[in-house]
Parts: sequence; C-alpha cells; structure tokens
Amino acid sequence: MADMSTADAGRSTVAKTSPGRFFEDFRLGETIVHATPRTVTSGDVTLYTALYGPRFAVQSSDAFAKAIGYPGAPVDDLLVFHIVFGKTVPDISINAVANLGYADGRFLKSVYPGDTLSATSEVIGLKQTSGGDSGIVYVRSIGRNQHGEIVLSYARWVLVRKRSPGTPAAFELVPELPKAVLPEALGESCPALALAGYDDGLAGSPFRWGDYQAGERIDHVDGMTVEEAEHQIATRLYQNTAKVHFDGYGARETRFGKRLIYGGHVISLARALSFNGLGNAFHIAAINAGRHVAPLFSGDTVYAWSEVLEAAELPGREDVGALRLRLVATKNLPCNELPLKQGDQYAEGVILDFDYWALLPR
Amino acid sequence: MADMSTADAGRSTVAKTSPGRFFEDFRLGETIVHATPRTVTSGDVTLYTALYGPRFAVQSSDAFAKAIGYPGAPVDDLLVFHIVFGKTVPDISINAVANLGYADGRFLKSVYPGDTLSATSEVIGLKQTSGGDSGIVYVRSIGRNQHGEIVLSYARWVLVRKRSPGTPAAFELVPELPKAVLPEALGESCPALALAGYDDGLAGSPFRWGDYQAGERIDHVDGMTVEEAEHQIATRLYQNTAKVHFDGYGARETRFGKRLIYGGHVISLARALSFNGLGNAFHIAAINAGRHVAPLFSGDTVYAWSEVLEAAELPGREDVGALRLRLVATKNLPCNELPLKQGDQYAEGVILDFDYWALLPR
Amino acid sequence: MADMSTADAGRSTVAKTSPGRFFEDFRLGETIVHATPRTVTSGDVTLYTALYGPRFAVQSSDAFAKAIGYPGAPVDDLLVFHIVFGKTVPDISINAVANLGYADGRFLKSVYPGDTLSATSEVIGLKQTSGGDSGIVYVRSIGRNQHGEIVLSYARWVLVRKRSPGTPAAFELVPELPKAVLPEALGESCPALALAGYDDGLAGSPFRWGDYQAGERIDHVDGMTVEEAEHQIATRLYQNTAKVHFDGYGARETRFGKRLIYGGHVISLARALSFNGLGNAFHIAAINAGRHVAPLFSGDTVYAWSEVLEAAELPGREDVGALRLRLVATKNLPCNELPLKQGDQYAEGVILDFDYWALLPR
Repeated sequence: MADMSTADAGRSTVAKTSPGRFFEDFRLGETIVHATPRTVTSGDVTLYTALYGPRFAVQSSDAFAKAIGYPGAPVDDLLVFHIVFGKTVPDISINAVANLGYADGRFLKSVYPGDTLSATSEVIGLKQTSGGDSGIVYVRSIGRNQHGEIVLSYARWVLVRKRSPGTPAAFELVPELPKAVLPEALGESCPALALAGYDDGLAGSPFRWGDYQAGERIDHVDGMTVEEAEHQIATRLYQNTAKVHFDGYGARETRFGKRLIYGGHVISLARALSFNGLGNAFHIAAINAGRHVAPLFSGDTVYAWSEVLEAAELPGREDVGALRLRLVATKNLPCNELPLKQGDQYAEGVILDFDYWALLPR
Repeated sequence: MADMSTADAGRSTVAKTSPGRFFEDFRLGETIVHATPRTVTSGDVTLYTALYGPRFAVQSSDAFAKAIGYPGAPVDDLLVFHIVFGKTVPDISINAVANLGYADGRFLKSVYPGDTLSATSEVIGLKQTSGGDSGIVYVRSIGRNQHGEIVLSYARWVLVRKRSPGTPAAFELVPELPKAVLPEALGESCPALALAGYDDGLAGSPFRWGDYQAGERIDHVDGMTVEEAEHQIATRLYQNTAKVHFDGYGARETRFGKRLIYGGHVISLARALSFNGLGNAFHIAAINAGRHVAPLFSGDTVYAWSEVLEAAELPGREDVGALRLRLVATKNLPCNELPLKQGDQYAEGVILDFDYWALLPR
Repeated sequence: MADMSTADAGRSTVAKTSPGRFFEDFRLGETIVHATPRTVTSGDVTLYTALYGPRFAVQSSDAFAKAIGYPGAPVDDLLVFHIVFGKTVPDISINAVANLGYADGRFLKSVYPGDTLSATSEVIGLKQTSGGDSGIVYVRSIGRNQHGEIVLSYARWVLVRKRSPGTPAAFELVPELPKAVLPEALGESCPALALAGYDDGLAGSPFRWGDYQAGERIDHVDGMTVEEAEHQIATRLYQNTAKVHFDGYGARETRFGKRLIYGGHVISLARALSFNGLGNAFHIAAINAGRHVAPLFSGDTVYAWSEVLEAAELPGREDVGALRLRLVATKNLPCNELPLKQGDQYAEGVILDFDYWALLPR
C-alpha cells in the first residue's frame, strides 16, 4: 500500500493520478512491470479482422491451421505486438515527444485465444539530447503469456521530455542493436509444418518462398481510408492510452491541430493490404526496424508496397523459408510507382518504412 | 508452386498481385476455390449485433435456442451469407461493374461459433453484353463448414468487364433460375422445434406464423444512419475486398465521388429493423431474389418496410411455417407510406428490394 | 398467439409493429417481461474494451482474476448494466421524454462469458405531471442469468408521454428509494479475495482502499472524443433501440437537430477514464444515483473527475472495502478545476453526476 500522511482530505493526500515517467525517472537496468494483463480472446481476433481486413489463412481458420500442424489458428502477430506495446505506453512513452525506432523484435511463441499477455520493459539505454530538455530512452520490452513464457521481445527507443530541463544526465549508454535479426534466430514460434496440408487455393496465393527473390517489388494495389472511430477503437483495443490518439479537444492546441493515428495502426493496415502479393507470408517472425516517417490522420487513405530485401533458409528446416521484407506505406498516394525516397529524403506521401522477416511455406 | 522463369529480380519475375478475373477468364462449368477459410466465433456474433442491432432471440441467446431444440444459438443467417459472399469477391466480382441479382439461395445447415466456413463458385452461365466490352457471369456459390457440409448455396450474376473489349465470347448460356425457392425445399437447417419452449414474451412478439397473411404490409418505423467506419468495419469483417467500399482517395475519381456501401450492409440493416413487426421471423430459410436499386452512402439513414407475399406450410412440419417476404429499404425516406414503385420505376429513395423466405413458429 | 380477426389482408390485420407503452399503459405492480435474452460472450468483452478502453485488471485478465479468487475474469459491471438497461427500453422508455434518475442499483452476482441475461421490470410508481400530457413511471428493473439468479437490480424513473393528454391518472404513488445503498448491502457479487494474489503492479495502482479518504478529489486527466460510429456500435451492442441515438435523418426535426448519445455511454467513458487515479477500484458494487445533466453529441470530448464521498468497511470482510464515489463527466472541458456546480446550477460543460460504490482491495 502507498503511504499516506495526511489529515486534510482532498488537499494533502498523495496524488493518485500517474503523470507517467519523465526522462530523469528512468534508471539504466531497471525492469518496469506494466499494468493490466490481458486475456486475448476470439473476440479480439474478430475485431482485429474487422479493423484491418487481413486474409492470411493460418490466422483466419482453425481448420487450415490444424491441417498444417498448429493446434488452432494463432493470434495475428501484430495483434500480439499491439497489445504488448499498448501496455508499455503509460510507463514508457506517455511523455514521449516521438517514437524513434524499433529493433530486434522477435515473435517467440504463438499466442492463442485464451492466453493472457503481460509485459515488462528493461531500460537498456539512456542518452540526453544536446538541447538538454529531453532524452532518448531505450527499452527492451517483453511480452509473456500466463505461463511466463516469452511470446515477444523487442527493443524500442523514444524521445522523452525531462521534468526539469536543466537536470544533468546521471549516466549515458546507447545500446548496440542489430540491423536485422539473423535467420538462425527465426521460426521459434512456428511449428514444423505438414506441408501436405497447406492448400495454396485456400491460402489465396500460388507463390511460395522459392518464388520470391531479393530485389523484387510488389505494389499491393488497394487503398484503405481510415476513420477516427476505427483507429480509436483499435487503439483502445490495445489499451494504449496515448492521449494524442483520443483527445480531439486537447489536440486543437497541438502541432497538428487534430488527433494523430497510432503508428501501429498503419503497420497493421499495410500488412493486411500486403496479402495481395504476399498471401503465403503467413507469419511475422521478426521486426528488424521500423520508422514512422510521417503522421496519418483520419480521412487519409493508406496504400502499401513491398520490396524483398533478402531470402533466407532457416537452419535445419525444409518446411518454411524466410523473406526479409521492406513494407512501405503511403497516404493519399497509390503505390504503382513504388515511392520511397527522393534523394536522401523520404518521398512526399510515404508514412511508414518497416523492415521485417516473414515466413512462407517452401 | 508457381513457375518462375527469371533471373532479373524485381523486373521479370511473375507478377505476384492478382488483378482478379475479367469476363474472358471465366469458363462455363469451372469451379473456383475461394481463398481464406474463416472460423466464425462468438466475436463475430458480437460485432454483427453491434453493427446492425438484431434482436431475434434464437440468435441472441443460447438459453432460448436450447429451449426450443437448437444445440445453442446459431449464427445469424446473413452473417453466414456475408462471409461466404466476401470470399467470392476477389475471384468473381473484383472487376465487376454491377452486382445484378441473386436467386435460389438456400440456408441448408446452421452455423455455430467454432465452425469454419469456406466457399467455392461454379460458373453456371456466361453472356456477353451487346456493347461487347463486358459480360454477365452467373455463378452458383456454395459455402461449406469444416466437415464439408453445405451450409449455403445461392446463384448470383454480375456484370464483369472484359480485359480486351473486342474479344468474342467463346460460349453463351443463360441458366434457368427459379423465381422463388419452393416451400418444400425450406427448413433443412431448422431443427424440429420444441414449441413449448418458445416464449413469445422473450422473443418480443405475440405474432406467430398464422397471424400473418399474404398482402399484409408492415412499416418497421425506425431509421438507422450509417457511418463510414461502420460499413468499413462490417465489410472487412466479411473479408470482402471490393475497393469501392474502402478507398476514399481513389473514389474521388469515380462516378459517385465517394465510397459506396456494400449492398449486403443494407440487407442486414433492413432485416434488423424488421424485428419490429416480424419479431418471430427468426430464420431466413431462402433468398429468392434481391435487387440493389440505388446506392447507399455514409450519412444516409436507412428505413425499411415489409410485405407478406405468401404464407406456406412446410410439408410434414407442424412446428414452423414460412412467410415469403418482400423487404424494402429506403434512404432518407421514412416508410410510413410504404414506398416501392412509381409506375414502372422504383420510387425515389428506394434502395433495396429483397425477396426471401422466413420461418416462424406456428 | 395473437388473435386476428380479419379477411381483408393488408388492411384490417392487427398492427404488428409495437409503438411502445405510453403513460396510461403502465399499471402499478405489473411486471413486464422484456424481450431478447442475450448470451454475453468474450466478444462482448472485447468490444466493450475497444469502445471505452477500461484497464481494470480483474475484468481484463483471466489469470489475474483467478489469482485472487474469481473463477475467471468477470464481465465489466457496466456492460451488464447496459445490456439489462437496453432490454427495458422498448417497453419502458421508447416514448420517454427524459430519463430522470436511477437509485438503489445493486450488482448481486458476477456475470461471466457464456451467461445469458434477461430482464424484467416491475412498475413501482406512477405520477402524473401537472401539465397532464405526461407522467413519471418508476420501475425496478431486474437482470437475471440463465439460472434465474438476479445479477442486477435497480430503480429508474422516466418521464413518459401520454397517448391522450387529457386522460386522468388511475392511481398515483411515488416510491421511497434510498439516497444510497447501505454498505452492509454491498459485496454480494465479489468473492472472498485472496489478497496475496493481488499484484498492485499488474493492477496499475499502488493505492488501496485505505489510501483514499472522504473529500479527496481526483482529476482523471485524459479526454476521449466520441464519434457517431462509436456510440451507435455501443448502443446496438446493448440492443438498445431508442431511436434518438440512431436516426440522423429524423433527428433533424428534433430539439437538438442531431443524434443524441446514450447516457450510459458517458458513464462507461468516465468510468474507464477514472482508472487513472482509481486503478484498484475494480468493482462497481452499487449505483446510488445518477443524473445526465446535459446531452453529449458526436465530436465532443469527455473528461472526468471523481470525489470520494465516503469510505466504508464491509461487515465481516477484511479483504475489500468500499468507496462511495461521485464521478463527474464534462464535455469539452478538462477537469483540472474539478467543475461541478456554480451556485445551484451545474457548471457549464458538466454532463454527468454519477454516485456509486466501488470496491477496492484493503
């Protein structure tokens, strides 16, 4: 219980509302236990489907998943990511100025309806900005199921405001993080697949791992317009409390003057659109890097294209192979010309540059 | 696996994105296996309820359903229809100019949470239009559960663009389809009801099959305004990929200049509104015909009225009877005057003319 | 079955659409059985989470709930309330001018996914208004599970139009209702908690029952903007049919000129916001009173603050204690100054004044 040393009720009681951590509040090496464990259910799977429209057969059908060796349809990897991420927000990024990057994200165990997810974050790096009014906090966030097994592990760094601009940094460390997860570290959460049960017709694509090669680019063609109600429903589903996504009245005073859409919403939309061209890329095994290049707002339409960065075998496995994919999302800009950069800058309209490993049947 | 005959990655690889079939791509008699089997769960039932507001007791309550002889609450017939229909879209109607009609739709087996639905379509007719730039494709689409049992079968015809306007049609056939399903073909998916367990108070209506007669008309009174977020969430729930429903940016260049609402959304709204007046019409046994008379857009308000076209006994059954109902939906036009036609034309404001068989307890 | 004495179909058949009850139709002491029992599922829990964003660990996590002595995560008390309330609308308040108040609401048994809820209302009071064109109807509404056990009981009174303004009232009685539920009547639906299993870190708050005291006030800081799609989805989820929430076309002719948001939507939003400051107030044990001070419309942003009115022990229980809380919601008005009243009037911007008992671990 909290200590409470007061007699004058309503005045000198301990403040009950959490303002969240500022830069000075993070200690290198500390592990933060995040609030609100969450049982994931078939209801979450439904709503995730309805918000983004993914059509990957493994996550959509218990029958399909069982036919290839899963005990049932696993929960979409990105839904797991968003739920774990959401838990970290009140402790890590509620006072963040910007979400700077992701690295070394690995999906280590499938999640099924009925599993309960909880999250912790270890502070793995701290670096003051030159201006002295904020600093970069590096954390490794870990999602676990009800048995304590790690289902997801990823590094993230965010720019966090200081409570008092002048405070000197106690300690600085920038962690070394890999540019990409190595192929030998992929596939832990994918069981040995019974390929005889993998039906390309039902899966919706004749193209397997061997049909793709590095350098290949795919326009995912379709566009999806986002409404305020949709991203708010999604972001609350993840119990993500970042006020920029919800408070339209307060947003009038911000830089953008309106609500900002959760960056993860863009990742999920682009991933769902990528089904058209990558229908057999059924599992996200790792997140190598991710950058939210520009903000998305209600009324904008998201398009996406992918580039195959690398194809890799998984040591000792003949059933699946990995593709390292760059998934690029744009707003109000169809992707037939595969927009990415103009010189050193991201092209106008690009909003997401996301680097991940997907598994496909061989 | 697809064949892939290329060395120059990113240029001459096989195109991975499916453009969908054009008129020339359909062959009479071929059966198309549609992608993405889908396990239907209680989450889908919830979201369907939240999107339309149906109040039929059999689908809403396990306890009510069990009391009359179902093993549990069956999934709403129209949710089954939309899921099966959605699967057919990428293969049948992604290049369609118009959805022309439905016929001979029969619900043959109840679907319960946990069942996995998949779909196939047989091409049963082809007819080139006089202009020569498109043709009508007739298909019989069939939805099956995880045991391979047929849960739904219906015919649909759509106007599909040609890839090359000049191509002559290889073969033409217009299938014969019944004006209406015969009463003796109804009721397969409805178990023998224990009428003693059917509580009119809980069901919300004192009117049973015998209380309705041909010619009777019912204004369902209430109106429901549709938002972009709602129809998009619904249509993605069905994994229906028709871009006209989602791409607001691309829609600026279309005839309407904005997103078009999935016609099935109107059917479900009108059916939910029809509870007020048809509260015991708990099961859609068959779809005789359906016409989307005019488009619906976000911000429009849907009203509905019904006409009893015919009352029929089911051979050998004393528990339930069938009503053939015409369900008419309008937009921005309350239905107190039962608007339908002005001369040969549908009245201004009418958007749906839907002919179906419902079962009611006797 | 209804009687039907007609030959001329479509003209003299009994009207099938229910207009709902007017003031003259209520009889003191009668019990009204409400339509459409509803099986609550994990899908409902998901959608409730996505609509409001509650983060109370007991309702969010099966694992957390089990660790403290529940058989699994119970359904949010307000979701139960809204479902029961929704059922009463077609019979009690469809012709209501205003929802005047609540009293003596008690949550008597936890609800779990799979339970089926049904509702009845007893007319406990009737009073004609001086104008003679309407009257106040007092009901006690009771929600039961599939075993017939009472899960919720509350009194509500509404101002209902008369069918014929001149009709004299047959009988008048204003029931006596308690200002607040007594502490000894609280806690029936909360099992004996295994406090050793209650993890404050996972629950998200270090403050337990003993840390709060009467007079303390808490600004819940965050704001939540409401969209039409959100409140419509919520209100249909509860199968609440009040047309003012759905019919945007018809609403043009009303006092406000637009759709009105269900008052219960505000209660749930404010309760979810109150997690920040009251994270361990995991269970609503009773509703003492509630007033919808002003209407909420789409586009408005809801903020909330709480005042501790009273702290009470529960007789014979050492595991939990009760806080009587006043939950105040505002629109477009951040609550840092804790707005409530200006003289005798509610302050501009206040929309809800809700008085309830919450349980917290000791």
